[in-house]
Amino acid sequence: MSNTSNEEISEAFLKLAQNELKVELIDKEVEQFKIKKMESVYNERDTLIEKIPSFWKIVLSQHLDFANYIRASDFKYIDAIEKITVKYASDIEKIGSFSITFHFNKIEGDLEEQIVTKNFKLVKIVSEDEEKKDAESDEESAEPEETLISDVCSIQWPKEYNSINPDLIEDKKSSEGKKNYRQGMKSFFGWFRWTGLKPGKEFPHGDSLATLFSEDLYPYCVKYYTEAQRDFEDEQSDSENSSEEGIELSEDEAEDEEPAQKKARTE
Amino acid sequence: MSNTSNEEISEAFLKLAQNELKVELIDKEVEQFKIKKMESVYNERDTLIEKIPSFWKIVLSQHLDFANYIRASDFKYIDAIEKITVKYASDIEKIGSFSITFHFNKIEGDLEEQIVTKNFKLVKIVSEDEEKKDAESDEESAEPEETLISDVCSIQWPKEYNSINPDLIEDKKSSEGKKNYRQGMKSFFGWFRWTGLKPGKEFPHGDSLATLFSEDLYPYCVKYYTEAQRDFEDEQSDSENSSEEGIELSEDEAEDEEPAQKKARTE
Repeated sequence: MSNTSNEEISEAFLKLAQNELKVELIDKEVEQFKIKKMESVYNERDTLIEKIPSFWKIVLSQHLDFANYIRASDFKYIDAIEKITVKYASDIEKIGSFSITFHFNKIEGDLEEQIVTKNFKLVKIVSEDEEKKDAESDEESAEPEETLISDVCSIQWPKEYNSINPDLIEDKKSSEGKKNYRQGMKSFFGWFRWTGLKPGKEFPHGDSLATLFSEDLYPYCVKYYTEAQRDFEDEQSDSENSSEEGIELSEDEAEDEEPAQKKARTE
Repeated sequence: MSNTSNEEISEAFLKLAQNELKVELIDKEVEQFKIKKMESVYNERDTLIEKIPSFWKIVLSQHLDFANYIRASDFKYIDAIEKITVKYASDIEKIGSFSITFHFNKIEGDLEEQIVTKNFKLVKIVSEDEEKKDAESDEESAEPEETLISDVCSIQWPKEYNSINPDLIEDKKSSEGKKNYRQGMKSFFGWFRWTGLKPGKEFPHGDSLATLFSEDLYPYCVKYYTEAQRDFEDEQSDSENSSEEGIELSEDEAEDEEPAQKKARTE
């Protein structure tokens, strides 16, 4: 359209890059605004949720994707989770970092009652070769990727997991020891050891499970609970219909649908 | 865990529903905060983009999903789009509504230069049977769905589209007329007539194309432009490699690959 000189175009590109930095900053400010606004509402919600029996058990079993992270043998410990809370860092330079707290109920003779908090930190990693210690300080480089990392978090494992509990495996170099170690690391309790710094040697997709809690399960827990209740009521009313008022209808249906089969049978 | 009475549970559910309304309100406040913060940055960006030749042509051809909405014959008119801007409603009760403005360049003997704005409104529709006029006022009902609607927007069609231009089809009831009408409604110019109120009789997925502009193409236009430039540079450097330092390699490749064919031809 307009005749722009090469010089003007170069200047526009430079200013556009600066403009993009403003956009990025606003994105963080928006996130900060949201976190601060939500804090008291989430606190209130945490208190209300405590009064609803089996709230988290129902939410976690309703969420389809969550099950993909959990081994079948873990489910009884998932069911023992009484309370989950997520706290989001609101300092502008810490946006994207968060911590998740789990309150486990006691399972007699197997699991201790415990409250465990795992912290996740969003850091900028410049290249795959770079060491972890440089990751946070090197902000100026071309296109740093934002990566979630965590510290190993202390948790009491269930007694039933003694054979795969990494702290109790005596010979980690034997083939049996290695196998059990790997099994343990893949369990939900293994996720608490996830750091994000040893890919392939830790709980698989530990970062995705963390963001599943922080971006989906915790913010939308009431939605998942309500969905689960609705599914349950639908099932209930289906069985009520067929046993009471539904009787006539199902007889009608039988008349409408079955003749062909009946005929077929009598012919 | 705790022994909660049924009364306490009912009260918790009631308060949880109120809490959810607070969450919804904060979501809107967050969106409002973002729109207001972004406004001046987007304005600045619009001005900078004007200086970059073929910016929108490059962005729109880079975006993979956009092409799914556009017929092959529309592309030359898409290429004539000089400028796109999106304005987002920032009133708390209008959050989710927006308008898109297109500046079309003239195509000699075919398309007039024109600036066209299409407005989109987010409304709550309570049930499918309900009339449009009730949709906005009836906020109290159980689970209203948020739906995007629009007004028919006046736009000059290209001369080449005379046969499918709905305003110029004389006999819309003939089979030829119907066929042309449908073709026209499926074109990019047909999208400007999309209202969201006559499903199956309008531009298909008109709402998705609108949100593609408002939530993806406009906010991330610089990202798409940069990606397109990078792809272009990669291609350039590939062809440079093969013409200079790359020569040896391509001769090697020729030796490795072609003998079979040459043999086949001489045999």
